[in-house]
Amino acid sequence: MTPYELIRTKRDGGALPLEALRAFVAAYGRGEIPDYQMAALCMAVWFRGLDPPELRTWTEAMLRSGGMLRRTSGSPPRIDKHSTGGVGDKVSLCLAPLVAACGVAVPMVAGRGLGHTGGTVDKLSAIPGFRTDLSLAETDRIVAELGVCMVGQTDEIAPADRRLYALRDVTATVDSIPLIAASILSKKLAEDLDGLVLDVKVGSGAFMRHREEAERLARTLVDLAWALGRPAVAWLTSMDAPLGSAVGNASELLEAVDVLRGKGPSDVRALTLRLGAEMLVLGRKAGSIAEAERLLEGAIDDGSGLARLRALVRAQGGDPEVLDRPEELLGPLQTTEVRAATEGVLAAVDTLAVGLAEVVLGAGRTRSDETLDPGVGFTVRCRPGERVERGEPLVLVHHRPGRDVAEVCHRLAVAFRIADRAESVPPLFLSRVEARRR
Amino acid sequence: MTPYELIRTKRDGGALPLEALRAFVAAYGRGEIPDYQMAALCMAVWFRGLDPPELRTWTEAMLRSGGMLRRTSGSPPRIDKHSTGGVGDKVSLCLAPLVAACGVAVPMVAGRGLGHTGGTVDKLSAIPGFRTDLSLAETDRIVAELGVCMVGQTDEIAPADRRLYALRDVTATVDSIPLIAASILSKKLAEDLDGLVLDVKVGSGAFMRHREEAERLARTLVDLAWALGRPAVAWLTSMDAPLGSAVGNASELLEAVDVLRGKGPSDVRALTLRLGAEMLVLGRKAGSIAEAERLLEGAIDDGSGLARLRALVRAQGGDPEVLDRPEELLGPLQTTEVRAATEGVLAAVDTLAVGLAEVVLGAGRTRSDETLDPGVGFTVRCRPGERVERGEPLVLVHHRPGRDVAEVCHRLAVAFRIADRAESVPPLFLSRVEARRR
Repeated sequence: MTPYELIRTKRDGGALPLEALRAFVAAYGRGEIPDYQMAALCMAVWFRGLDPPELRTWTEAMLRSGGMLRRTSGSPPRIDKHSTGGVGDKVSLCLAPLVAACGVAVPMVAGRGLGHTGGTVDKLSAIPGFRTDLSLAETDRIVAELGVCMVGQTDEIAPADRRLYALRDVTATVDSIPLIAASILSKKLAEDLDGLVLDVKVGSGAFMRHREEAERLARTLVDLAWALGRPAVAWLTSMDAPLGSAVGNASELLEAVDVLRGKGPSDVRALTLRLGAEMLVLGRKAGSIAEAERLLEGAIDDGSGLARLRALVRAQGGDPEVLDRPEELLGPLQTTEVRAATEGVLAAVDTLAVGLAEVVLGAGRTRSDETLDPGVGFTVRCRPGERVERGEPLVLVHHRPGRDVAEVCHRLAVAFRIADRAESVPPLFLSRVEARRR
Repeated sequence: MTPYELIRTKRDGGALPLEALRAFVAAYGRGEIPDYQMAALCMAVWFRGLDPPELRTWTEAMLRSGGMLRRTSGSPPRIDKHSTGGVGDKVSLCLAPLVAACGVAVPMVAGRGLGHTGGTVDKLSAIPGFRTDLSLAETDRIVAELGVCMVGQTDEIAPADRRLYALRDVTATVDSIPLIAASILSKKLAEDLDGLVLDVKVGSGAFMRHREEAERLARTLVDLAWALGRPAVAWLTSMDAPLGSAVGNASELLEAVDVLRGKGPSDVRALTLRLGAEMLVLGRKAGSIAEAERLLEGAIDDGSGLARLRALVRAQGGDPEVLDRPEELLGPLQTTEVRAATEGVLAAVDTLAVGLAEVVLGAGRTRSDETLDPGVGFTVRCRPGERVERGEPLVLVHHRPGRDVAEVCHRLAVAFRIADRAESVPPLFLSRVEARRR
């Protein structure tokens, strides 16, 4: 079947021959299929979807366009976590060393921030000298030594996905559930995992704003992971407000360190424990979620989680001592308060608007070649459902001294909606999706 | 609105802002929009369509990507005919000079054959020295002198359409009614017409195999022409058998000359008279179809139609005397008969298969860079509904001496289906579609 026939078949709603599909995606990864044919196919997929065998084939072909991490025999189970992205989500930073401290290896290939959502790679890059561009061989060595490593997607990992993501980004084919699932899993499966925990965000600050589509994505991801031989669990969690209090790169890293010190905001801690517990259960280090959460709390209390993060920072080229010197990570900052214009209850936060304000401030990017200021950010002081007095600070904006932040403050003031009475606030944990075993 | 937003809006079924759409198509014509974005947009259009204002804007932008023919004041009305393509359709070759002989100018930009359908440009190119790559200025001069000219699409005419057609051809976005309509009219309107007659073919040898979609295309074309200020009439005509008896480039030209001599197959003559009559009525040279047909018959009987074709051949670089020396146009040929394997009635002709057999013979092309043999072709001896005896020749294959034509003959034998009794044969003229005046 020619590329033309493949596009036409998908367009007309027919089933794609799997060998032809595999060959098409592989050839695209090698640069042998032009972008315009892949763009036409992706748009046809946007309308028609991919059935499970097609999705599995597509994902495997993208995975095989690059290399994989490798482990030595007898090494511990390997489980990773992936979040679909939100505002203030620093969970990976405390979760990965904590789970590793409990005996499950976490070889995490993480993303950079784009648009309104932050990226784990950017938060780690706030540490001077910290390298996220490790080769597969370097990553293998660090995972073997520490049970944890956190790197960016290099050219070695699913290059077909890299090229395709850039194409989807300019052809309005990003928000297709099968294409999202294939992109996530082609990268994650390059980590040679035993299982995967997925945090699918729902709400005003998430890519999936509605629960039904988030559930469809979660179901697609766990079923696809299972079809590829990896047990997976997904949690739908609320992204109707920034997670925790810190928004910004270095400040989020510091908030994650707080969690490892037994402090930090309750939602960040709760999410870290729940997702980490799922990882320990998948990795068979605990028989139940409750037992797993106790193990993780122990690794917080005895400092072994934080010690693992420090070791990771050192192994990847940074100086762990900076985690104790916030002013060094943040640099000189000035703080401007965004205050409540009226009294009432904080009814809702337009979390997308908060993420976009972060971009305007310089802590996020809209083009992949933009550089960030790791030190600037927000401190969120008020959560939906809480009472506010007129003039009370809702958010603190930490910016470079003398910098005009009027637009940032205006965006934030609009994003925090105050009403006469409370509206229903969704719980952090919305639902859990497991693979349908066959 | 950015290109990305335009693609996304169409994908989601929204109305495109016309100025943004115009700018997008114009930029594509200048090579400033990459093919992958246009491919994604075309696939979205395949699914969502274009509403009338979008279609008009798209067509105008493609038209304006190139130049136009120009006429001097006081010149006669200009009407053209366009056919959506079929097998054995040589009507343009006799129609254009005949209509010109009756006082309506026909500045025809014609197509080359591709796939199973032949092209007027290829049939004319069977004449040694005949040039179809005239500039706009040369075409203007010949139309002013003779009232008729027949040229191919050069880089001067709707280059955006040229680039887009090549892209649609490899991205499975050819068979979209709005994109077909825009492609046809962007070229035809470059002729500075007063009106247009459309021959929309339906059946086994046409791009539109079903009547409903052909009616939709005809309706779209006449409404779009009207919206662009050109009166238009479309006829749906049957393409369930090759038109006439000759299939091949030089042989079709010779059959068209036969019609201008008052001979030729009845279906070719009937179609020429009906479409030509519509052109004369649109050009206000006749008050009714009946009157117009009498004018055209007069131009056949007095030889003025044929004289006009001879003048055109001379003006475009050929020697009109070759029209009287078939052996010179055809070259040395050998004839192989395809005979009926059984007695009965010719129930149906798979006309697509006949067109594809023409490609195998060397008289058609599947890639735009293939060269043709102008002399080879078929003579169709039997029409659907006619009785055939076992062993009776159904088609004659005219090929180069010594050339193996077993595959061609096999394809033709399968294409002509003989049954015990007659099946219903559609009439040549199926229905007429006029613009809904607003």
